[in-house]
Amino acid sequence: MLQQTASKRQKVALASAADTTALSALVKAHEAGLADYVLFGQEREIASVAEAAGLKIDRKAIREVKGEKEACGAAVEAVRKGEADTLMKGRVYTRVYLRAVLDREKGLRGRGLMSHVFIWEVLHMGRLIFVSDAALNMYPDVEQKAAIVENAVKAAKAFGLAEPKVALLAAVENVNPKMPATIDAAIITQMARRKQVAQGAIVDGPLALDNALSEEAARVKGIESPVAGRADVLVVPDINCGNMLAKAYPFLVPGGEMAGILVGAAKPVIITSRADSEKSKLYSIAAAAFVWRAGA
Amino acid sequence: MLQQTASKRQKVALASAADTTALSALVKAHEAGLADYVLFGQEREIASVAEAAGLKIDRKAIREVKGEKEACGAAVEAVRKGEADTLMKGRVYTRVYLRAVLDREKGLRGRGLMSHVFIWEVLHMGRLIFVSDAALNMYPDVEQKAAIVENAVKAAKAFGLAEPKVALLAAVENVNPKMPATIDAAIITQMARRKQVAQGAIVDGPLALDNALSEEAARVKGIESPVAGRADVLVVPDINCGNMLAKAYPFLVPGGEMAGILVGAAKPVIITSRADSEKSKLYSIAAAAFVWRAGA
Repeated sequence: MLQQTASKRQKVALASAADTTALSALVKAHEAGLADYVLFGQEREIASVAEAAGLKIDRKAIREVKGEKEACGAAVEAVRKGEADTLMKGRVYTRVYLRAVLDREKGLRGRGLMSHVFIWEVLHMGRLIFVSDAALNMYPDVEQKAAIVENAVKAAKAFGLAEPKVALLAAVENVNPKMPATIDAAIITQMARRKQVAQGAIVDGPLALDNALSEEAARVKGIESPVAGRADVLVVPDINCGNMLAKAYPFLVPGGEMAGILVGAAKPVIITSRADSEKSKLYSIAAAAFVWRAGA
Repeated sequence: MLQQTASKRQKVALASAADTTALSALVKAHEAGLADYVLFGQEREIASVAEAAGLKIDRKAIREVKGEKEACGAAVEAVRKGEADTLMKGRVYTRVYLRAVLDREKGLRGRGLMSHVFIWEVLHMGRLIFVSDAALNMYPDVEQKAAIVENAVKAAKAFGLAEPKVALLAAVENVNPKMPATIDAAIITQMARRKQVAQGAIVDGPLALDNALSEEAARVKGIESPVAGRADVLVVPDINCGNMLAKAYPFLVPGGEMAGILVGAAKPVIITSRADSEKSKLYSIAAAAFVWRAGA
């Protein structure tokens, strides 16, 4: 994921920058020629975190702001005004960070729904898998799910996938009127066939995870689908499913790393969890660079 | 998982036995001294599947029954009457199999709720993880979730865990009145503290998957919990979450295998998916042996 982004350099605004793993990831991204940075927070705190982690930071890149909420506001403003390209989360609660991003006047809202995409780099499959929405929209209705599909397809295309294959996940692959996730999947599949959503992508569901990822599982179950076994994008029924599924990857696969970005915002926004590794945050910076370059 | 079960031999009734992977797993379990078997279905079909797979089967163990539904009924009856110990699913749709199991008069219902438990053998963590309910109960209410916790704890104890740690999963670890999964988790945690459910287990939630499995993730997020980072049992909000989470393991982890059993039935019942591997079915037979020996 890292190599291909070095050609063009985004400037990342780190909100509440006194965060060891975020700062360290950003400094490493800078050293790899992947990003410039501007750091929002208290200089003394940022310098102390950097020193403790053995990081060489450019003191001139620090913008002195007191308070986490204020640091988020200032970083968002810098991105909105074009002084930086990408927003990144430092040591601040997600809800505080998102409040600044989602502010109707001073935030980074785009034209439509904003949604979150996790990106797994599944090494043994040799492919990227995009999971959405596992972090922002809690219980999306059909219309919101359609927007989530659109945004995830944009993200996948930003990574160079010409015609992303989207699996609308449920617990089963049959449409069961008692299971709303299967009904929504059927509706959105048909909307896609009518070219109402996700043009330039192939959408199918409901699919269960096994037949979305494994051609063998799809074959055994007799599922005929252009997506089954070859899904690039996994769209989940709600935030509980998505969060568990997305997090399963880095915690179950030794060395498995994932990136997290917002799509549908006016500018690329990185949301990582406080518990994410430095490598995961570095991957998220790289992912944001793809989205930024593609203008998605 | 396999070694420890060889001491005592269960007899497995395979319903609709002309299934390559199920039959092969059962014959291998037999050769490993893990199980005896009785096969329900059409002798000609079973023999032909066995021959194609190069399996040596005992023809005298075949009970000639025409039709998948009828084979399920006859296998269930054999287990109910004590002619076999454990029921196993062959080449038949889950719903047809379950209909025979759940039949109020002729089935294998226990006293309370029946629920399904997936068991991951997570090699890099050196431990077993029990995930429930990912296959049977679709949208359990609080009372049903409490029964699911009870059943999963029984299963974990059957595997020798003295005091299983149960994480009630959600997308977040804070109680959010807008997110029902977090409310149910809070309720059941308090019920457990009042010794209303799952005595002999430690129950805590809501927890997100990362802080349920990783002590480091729990530490970074400042979560104080006797379960965080050390969960043995993961109880999911609904079947969509559970199914995706459980299946993520074998499909994302190369060589990752899982077993699947019903708990709360009158006798051990194995439910595997048609797409599961032979090894996964063999593990399920071993899991059923644990449950059978413990009388759980």
